[in-house]
Amino acid sequence: MTDWTVDEAIALTRKEEKDNIARLREFVRIESVSMTPARADDVMRASEWLAHELRRIGFEHVRIHETEGHPIVTADWLNAGSDVPTVLIYGHVDVQPVEPVSEWTVPPFDITERDDRLYGRGSTDDKGQLLMHLVALDALMRNGGGRLPCNFKLVVDAEEEIGSPSLLGWMKSNPELVTADFAVVSDSPMYDYNMPSIACSLRGIANLEVELRSADGDVHAGQFGGAIANAARSLSRILAALHDADGCVTVPGFYDGVPSIAREERERFACLPFDENAWMASVGALGAEGEAGFSTLERTWVRPTLEINGLFSGHIAEGTKAIVPAVATAKLSCRLVAGQDPEALQNKVAEHIAALAPANVRCMVKRLSVVPPAAIDHRSAAVQLAASSLAQAFATEVFLVRDGGAIPAVAHLKDHFSMDTLLMGFGCPDENKHGPDEWLAMLHFRKGIEALIAYWPALARTGAQ
Amino acid sequence: MTDWTVDEAIALTRKEEKDNIARLREFVRIESVSMTPARADDVMRASEWLAHELRRIGFEHVRIHETEGHPIVTADWLNAGSDVPTVLIYGHVDVQPVEPVSEWTVPPFDITERDDRLYGRGSTDDKGQLLMHLVALDALMRNGGGRLPCNFKLVVDAEEEIGSPSLLGWMKSNPELVTADFAVVSDSPMYDYNMPSIACSLRGIANLEVELRSADGDVHAGQFGGAIANAARSLSRILAALHDADGCVTVPGFYDGVPSIAREERERFACLPFDENAWMASVGALGAEGEAGFSTLERTWVRPTLEINGLFSGHIAEGTKAIVPAVATAKLSCRLVAGQDPEALQNKVAEHIAALAPANVRCMVKRLSVVPPAAIDHRSAAVQLAASSLAQAFATEVFLVRDGGAIPAVAHLKDHFSMDTLLMGFGCPDENKHGPDEWLAMLHFRKGIEALIAYWPALARTGAQ
Repeated sequence: MTDWTVDEAIALTRKEEKDNIARLREFVRIESVSMTPARADDVMRASEWLAHELRRIGFEHVRIHETEGHPIVTADWLNAGSDVPTVLIYGHVDVQPVEPVSEWTVPPFDITERDDRLYGRGSTDDKGQLLMHLVALDALMRNGGGRLPCNFKLVVDAEEEIGSPSLLGWMKSNPELVTADFAVVSDSPMYDYNMPSIACSLRGIANLEVELRSADGDVHAGQFGGAIANAARSLSRILAALHDADGCVTVPGFYDGVPSIAREERERFACLPFDENAWMASVGALGAEGEAGFSTLERTWVRPTLEINGLFSGHIAEGTKAIVPAVATAKLSCRLVAGQDPEALQNKVAEHIAALAPANVRCMVKRLSVVPPAAIDHRSAAVQLAASSLAQAFATEVFLVRDGGAIPAVAHLKDHFSMDTLLMGFGCPDENKHGPDEWLAMLHFRKGIEALIAYWPALARTGAQ
Repeated sequence: MTDWTVDEAIALTRKEEKDNIARLREFVRIESVSMTPARADDVMRASEWLAHELRRIGFEHVRIHETEGHPIVTADWLNAGSDVPTVLIYGHVDVQPVEPVSEWTVPPFDITERDDRLYGRGSTDDKGQLLMHLVALDALMRNGGGRLPCNFKLVVDAEEEIGSPSLLGWMKSNPELVTADFAVVSDSPMYDYNMPSIACSLRGIANLEVELRSADGDVHAGQFGGAIANAARSLSRILAALHDADGCVTVPGFYDGVPSIAREERERFACLPFDENAWMASVGALGAEGEAGFSTLERTWVRPTLEINGLFSGHIAEGTKAIVPAVATAKLSCRLVAGQDPEALQNKVAEHIAALAPANVRCMVKRLSVVPPAAIDHRSAAVQLAASSLAQAFATEVFLVRDGGAIPAVAHLKDHFSMDTLLMGFGCPDENKHGPDEWLAMLHFRKGIEALIAYWPALARTGAQ
């Protein structure tokens, strides 16, 4: 049996850190925005870049699978034997749009090193975190004479940022490329800077779009203003009515199926080191708000929410335009928790909005993508051992947390393959994921790779799962 | 003294109708959108086109005056003698933006003849109506052997659609180019199709822009949603609170100075032929709404209003984006009536919005352009005679109405030069002014020119004013 000298592998990645950042830069420079149809070729280029990288490291059966949407990359290395675990690593090469570009202080599609951070779209979500796995496995492979401590399968999505519409269908058609003892996903923040954590739940998402139309086209504000419906005003009224004065969502049945928080968990949350003012200051927020009776951590981890993601109506360019806008649209998204069904929630919200719309506007509610929520069993040996590896690499306590984000793959693996996922994120809560100036902490990049290098040989020593 | 044979001049314009429409097409093809800085050269080109046309017709002292913004074109023909009136014709060469272009069924910057209408941006507001004056005066000039029945001054603005910011200052510096017995402006709709009218008041405008900011940049909806302020939601709440359930504006003092409607005028309005359903159907509106206790005509003619002209926040492109938007903006405009001060009203609205903003968002209210309201004495001989000319050309009754629109020049002429303005519009209420598929009725173009040709010689016969 091959021996892996963790210290030597770590020394290798330290020595090659500049090369690894250069690799991340190459990866980030590919503008793989899955939401934008015009970027489809770039999304494919990102998948090809990854496939090339996987082959270089020594993975086998590297393939780019076509789907109805963007491609899925798979690879494996299954030569470690039947006495060690088989692990599925899931990640994604696609990123969120970078608009508004004017709010960035660095080039969005590049890596800028500043203040011990790696800035750039995808630096943390998820190109950077995915690359951390590749760097760790590359180091182990070279340190181990071309061998890895465990068996690995990789499934790399290119549609995660649009709700992974092709993934589940593809997984069901290719179960042999998916099934493993458990999955590992690094696509979430740690509890805080230098506070490693493992998450035991993800929220789901239900996206909607509302369009109101009050006339055939925009009309003159002097001739019609104040006498017919204004689509923008009608929309404002509807949106304002979606929450009550206590911050509760007014949609009937919105909270159906939401489990109450166990007293022990509530107490555990309350004991976590959490500085609400610092948390708000990290994004320049001036004050917390939300559902009455819940703390900020509870609101973001274990409660469903309804947010406006975008608003558009009438004249938004420079200057003034004397119109009553005929059309107003809002993009909305709900976060839901394990126990709630995303399609059912979507229907409730759509029906409530239609009921709120006045008779003199046409109201259309589109049901967009959904992501199911996921709960994960955190008592397994794999999770406990991951916590130890993190604690050792970061030389600090590891927190068991929940995550307010959503990753479709995690729900699909649980619901359709009975696979738990180790949610070992390396981001930061204030990393500007999805916003301008997205970043990954240099410390997390470095220590995270070290934790992963320590983890796989340790996991192998526990034997087959 | 020269004799003008009205019938011959009219015959001339009928014969040359195709040429005159071709001239309008040339004029409309110049994309003179004053609001868009990138179109400044086109605005200048439209002024130059007009100056060339004025010289061709035989106007004298044709000049293009530079201002801080877009130019002002002036010309005159003052050889009719001191025993006939001197009239100022005011119009404008600039137009509103054409966005959203997708809502147009014809090329915006061209003239399309369809269904006895001339479609195109500026066809009615105001290139078409301004050209009607030139066509009428050209015909009279040629019919009269190079002479006109009255003395004329022309002042043609290129900033009317942005509130004529340079006009008043320029007028004050050039009073000799402005002063006349009265002014004529054709930049408003007739009461209805083939229902000529003269308006005796215009409303004013107070424009504002609201920007709310809830964080330094857009943040991840899974990590922050439901726990910090959402700029779009905060904005919706503020906007929804600007009107009460009765459709009254809630801004304290909003209705200060608004005169109550005289019983006789109310009765006169009520007797006007007005089919509210047809009026709504003309723009595809599904139901009237507005300030309780007032009719639709009263709401648009003699009551102040507050409208949302535009809304923007977060992600408005295709697809979904899981963000809490950090910024939300709304463009607002108030229409006010004679008796109200636009700056004072602007301040009241701005202060109320700032007071409505919650503590956890930064609220900035910009005070944009204003236009004063104007009331016009309609008992003068000039107005009475214009009514007769219209009645004759259109072979129908002429209505004395009010206009919900705003024209800064009219207020400035009244307030600073004690000049009344004959508001003789040739548009239609459903002409899509400022919106997509703007049009001018072919009948109004033709009959309006004929009314003007009949009017000037008749006015000359009344002698000096």
